Amino acid sequence: MSLLVVGSIAIDDVETPKGTAPNVLGGSASYFSYAASFFTPVRVVGVVGADFPSDLLSVLTDNPNIDTQGVQKESGNSFRWKGKYEGDMNVAETLEVHLNVFGEFDPHVPAAYRDSRFVFLANGSPNVQMKVLDQMDRPELVVADTMNLWIEIQRDELLTLMKRIDGLVLNDQEALLLTQADSVVAAGLQVMQMGPKFVIVKKGEHGAMFFAHDEVVAMPAFPTGRLTDPTGAGDSFAGGMMGYLASQGKSDVNTLKRGMAYGAVVASINVEGFTLSRFLETSRDHIDKRFDAYRRMLHIV
Amino acid sequence: MSLLVVGSIAIDDVETPKGTAPNVLGGSASYFSYAASFFTPVRVVGVVGADFPSDLLSVLTDNPNIDTQGVQKESGNSFRWKGKYEGDMNVAETLEVHLNVFGEFDPHVPAAYRDSRFVFLANGSPNVQMKVLDQMDRPELVVADTMNLWIEIQRDELLTLMKRIDGLVLNDQEALLLTQADSVVAAGLQVMQMGPKFVIVKKGEHGAMFFAHDEVVAMPAFPTGRLTDPTGAGDSFAGGMMGYLASQGKSDVNTLKRGMAYGAVVASINVEGFTLSRFLETSRDHIDKRFDAYRRMLHIV
Repeated sequence: MSLLVVGSIAIDDVETPKGTAPNVLGGSASYFSYAASFFTPVRVVGVVGADFPSDLLSVLTDNPNIDTQGVQKESGNSFRWKGKYEGDMNVAETLEVHLNVFGEFDPHVPAAYRDSRFVFLANGSPNVQMKVLDQMDRPELVVADTMNLWIEIQRDELLTLMKRIDGLVLNDQEALLLTQADSVVAAGLQVMQMGPKFVIVKKGEHGAMFFAHDEVVAMPAFPTGRLTDPTGAGDSFAGGMMGYLASQGKSDVNTLKRGMAYGAVVASINVEGFTLSRFLETSRDHIDKRFDAYRRMLHIV
Repeated sequence: MSLLVVGSIAIDDVETPKGTAPNVLGGSASYFSYAASFFTPVRVVGVVGADFPSDLLSVLTDNPNIDTQGVQKESGNSFRWKGKYEGDMNVAETLEVHLNVFGEFDPHVPAAYRDSRFVFLANGSPNVQMKVLDQMDRPELVVADTMNLWIEIQRDELLTLMKRIDGLVLNDQEALLLTQADSVVAAGLQVMQMGPKFVIVKKGEHGAMFFAHDEVVAMPAFPTGRLTDPTGAGDSFAGGMMGYLASQGKSDVNTLKRGMAYGAVVASINVEGFTLSRFLETSRDHIDKRFDAYRRMLHIV
């Protein structure tokens, strides 16, 4: 099934205890689309500035499974993020953020994309996310990501969006902020009441939880001993999951669990290197081997 | 197989967002022994003061699977702990701690206990833990818990202990403190180098990780929506796990995984009420039903 992602494409500057990576490819749409490309063709809507280095963008344009005709080029500078991780690398400290062209992002979905059956709205303002939905034919499955900023300043718009989507992806702190619940489980169940058919709460190195009408599923992260840079882990998780779902053309509970497992595996590979470097040396076969190990790990005989 | 636990028996004062519980039964040996008693008979070595309320101790003495002849009664006051949990209840704030008779605890293992095949040394100073081992016949499986205090002030003694035990249980922060590693996975692998055959890293609401010579297993907590009081979750986890292992009389990787799953289930029941209240209304049948749900949750078809 056709898969569309709308999100950011950025130039990142990252420092972790394992090293530094200046001027590298970042952004939610970059991580998501590459992660999804292991499973299915993926269409990207995003924006870059006139200054965007062509060798960074070529990581996406050279991938035969990534369609970048929806990447708009605007005059002005590209979205830049500079961040640092310390200690156990659980939380990024944002040192600088320049939204530049992404701040005015007015997504235009190319005519050839409008029939996409699976849609992922990466983190962005709920208003911009709804503008995307307005341009789509009737997609089968729409999943959106969000963040604390929108929960705080566009809560009403977010609640409106939540009635138009099938799944919401957010992290544990955001789920607690959105609901004022006293545990992640309670928060997930409360978010369900706000409209989506399922909710996925990402917990970083602790894995993710999935909530559907009568299911609560907790899944751990795949334990890698080679954590290098957590940037993009959440979008890689979403990309692996949505890519798998689109490749199967369905989203029942068992397929969603398999999708979450693929998401966990792809995210664990991504964090083993800076930017998308580990993806570039990864094959679907390698992903499937790690998926089998993950399944065995969780199989209680 | 016979199971022995050596640890604390306390009078707790607990406050959480769900309420307060003054003067209730607490202590590692209390939670551990009750959790283990669902699976196997368990022998307790601990100490209480002359002031210990008999109705609190009767929670243990009334349980036909708990042998309390090893509970020493000393003149003086009992161990008291007063703590508070706020927000998402991840971390206890200790308001008061009075070690009293537990501060001078000199464990005496009754002759009838010395042949115990499975031994759990709940959190205590490594010196005291080794004194217990000195009194034992050759047990088959010895597992010890520890805490940041001993890592800081009795590091050498802890390293000596680690060469005399089969398994070490500690939480994620303690594993990072002990190794100075930059991730829990790296920390677990490094603790393995210090002597034990396996290491279990507890992560509270995020579950636990298990490390053996060629296995790294991450398992989530069982997601309960009724979190009331996290006190004793770690000792309940250990009790469920060790109780199951002792009931099976083995500790191979598959049995350990089942044991960890039982530990996760028992801990999730315990945190649904204050002190040991939920255990008192729980049957092995209820535990087995939740175990099956946990297994199904992690089964990726």
